[in-house]
Amino acid sequence: MNTLPKSIVCIGAGNVATHLSKALQQQGFQLLQVYSRTEESARTLAQALGCEWTTQLAQVCEQADVYIVSVKDAVLETVIDQLAHCNSEALYLHTAGSMPMEVWKGKRKNYGVVYPMQTFSKQREICMEEVPFFLEANTAENLDLLRKLTEHLSPKVYEASSAQRKYLHIAAVFACNFSNHMYAICEHLLTAHQLPFESMLPLIDETARKVHELSPLEAQTGPARRYDENVIQRHLDMLQDEEPQLAEIYRLLSQHIHQYETEKQK
Amino acid sequence: MNTLPKSIVCIGAGNVATHLSKALQQQGFQLLQVYSRTEESARTLAQALGCEWTTQLAQVCEQADVYIVSVKDAVLETVIDQLAHCNSEALYLHTAGSMPMEVWKGKRKNYGVVYPMQTFSKQREICMEEVPFFLEANTAENLDLLRKLTEHLSPKVYEASSAQRKYLHIAAVFACNFSNHMYAICEHLLTAHQLPFESMLPLIDETARKVHELSPLEAQTGPARRYDENVIQRHLDMLQDEEPQLAEIYRLLSQHIHQYETEKQK
Repeated sequence: MNTLPKSIVCIGAGNVATHLSKALQQQGFQLLQVYSRTEESARTLAQALGCEWTTQLAQVCEQADVYIVSVKDAVLETVIDQLAHCNSEALYLHTAGSMPMEVWKGKRKNYGVVYPMQTFSKQREICMEEVPFFLEANTAENLDLLRKLTEHLSPKVYEASSAQRKYLHIAAVFACNFSNHMYAICEHLLTAHQLPFESMLPLIDETARKVHELSPLEAQTGPARRYDENVIQRHLDMLQDEEPQLAEIYRLLSQHIHQYETEKQK
Repeated sequence: MNTLPKSIVCIGAGNVATHLSKALQQQGFQLLQVYSRTEESARTLAQALGCEWTTQLAQVCEQADVYIVSVKDAVLETVIDQLAHCNSEALYLHTAGSMPMEVWKGKRKNYGVVYPMQTFSKQREICMEEVPFFLEANTAENLDLLRKLTEHLSPKVYEASSAQRKYLHIAAVFACNFSNHMYAICEHLLTAHQLPFESMLPLIDETARKVHELSPLEAQTGPARRYDENVIQRHLDMLQDEEPQLAEIYRLLSQHIHQYETEKQK
């Protein structure tokens, strides 16, 4: 398969599968079919794409050029095994940060990974052109093909080995899921004291904007950076009374910020 | 003092004092003098403002309309005591999140707090119009005066009691300092594995943008939200080998996200 693939089957109907398949269709690729274990998910995405759907892996269409598998890590290998009846010449891709490319090895001829570095929620539109994609493939030719496919979606295309991708995934958990959880704790504390969360949005925005120009280490401010033990202790006492778990998180993160500051000054 | 004050002395020359005094000058207020314990800080800010400076509290100008004290919490009360020679009719303000308004009580006649909710770094310009300010004053008249003063800087003006302000400060530590630290850990992990931090900026931006429309609880994604124990355990194993402290942070935050998810579903 030397030319750009045209027809795609989407295995999975979660957040990543939904955004990726819609964006590919917008770029002129033909979405043939959606598979999901859950009928409602399969039907919802298939209706949005105007294509077929199935909840049976044995009924996955055999003649696509590309199969994109975007399912929970725990079931990825089982799903792969059940695609044995499909086009042996097709390009098989998964989208999982923490799963090696080698899950395909010995099972398919042409394979790789396309890992989009973004947080996808079904309720939100994503500007795909701003999404960085990290690619890996089993041959130079397949990598070239995958690169051409992905460049239809975004100019931000990087290569990353399976080993690197595992760290990308962990790094993304910190940058996205854990920073979002800091917002969640913030909202929780404000709501409990009759204060509006929206008053924090300029602070949240500026914190994110800052690291476009400064390294996060340079951008840091606040009591932990100054190691202002008075403030830190007062905050810990307040949290300890209300919610000991929040005190534990505050203590651990303040110590770790202080450690980074100390190392920086060496 | 019933009319809008004109002349201001700035006690402190740190990040908050720097941004606040420059913005007030731009709005037509007269900055008379800067005090800082450190000669270099005092001179740098005074030169930027084109005003006098001193490193001696006893030499702080006696005739200003407003004194804005923006110093470390630990020295705030000592500094206040050393301003006894200054204009007894002036409005005295501090900018500290975690210090009560009552630090002024019995020491000055007109006083309050102006707490800007933003992360200030000297290297970065701040759009002051987007900064929310939380105000408190000892009388309705002083609050009115303080509100008029602050509305020259920003339309986002809120009232908050000393008790509320303490929680605002803690909430801001989570939303800003701790989320920035998540970026710092992200950069640290990527650099160690030859990956560019800039590839995370779209993810960081989207994570911040999302909470303008969704509550952080609704916006959450990732392995901890799904409680995908396979991924979580694999990440913990990897971090444990390299940096046990990062594993501890990862474990604690994943558990806490899971707890919020469980409570949400009740």
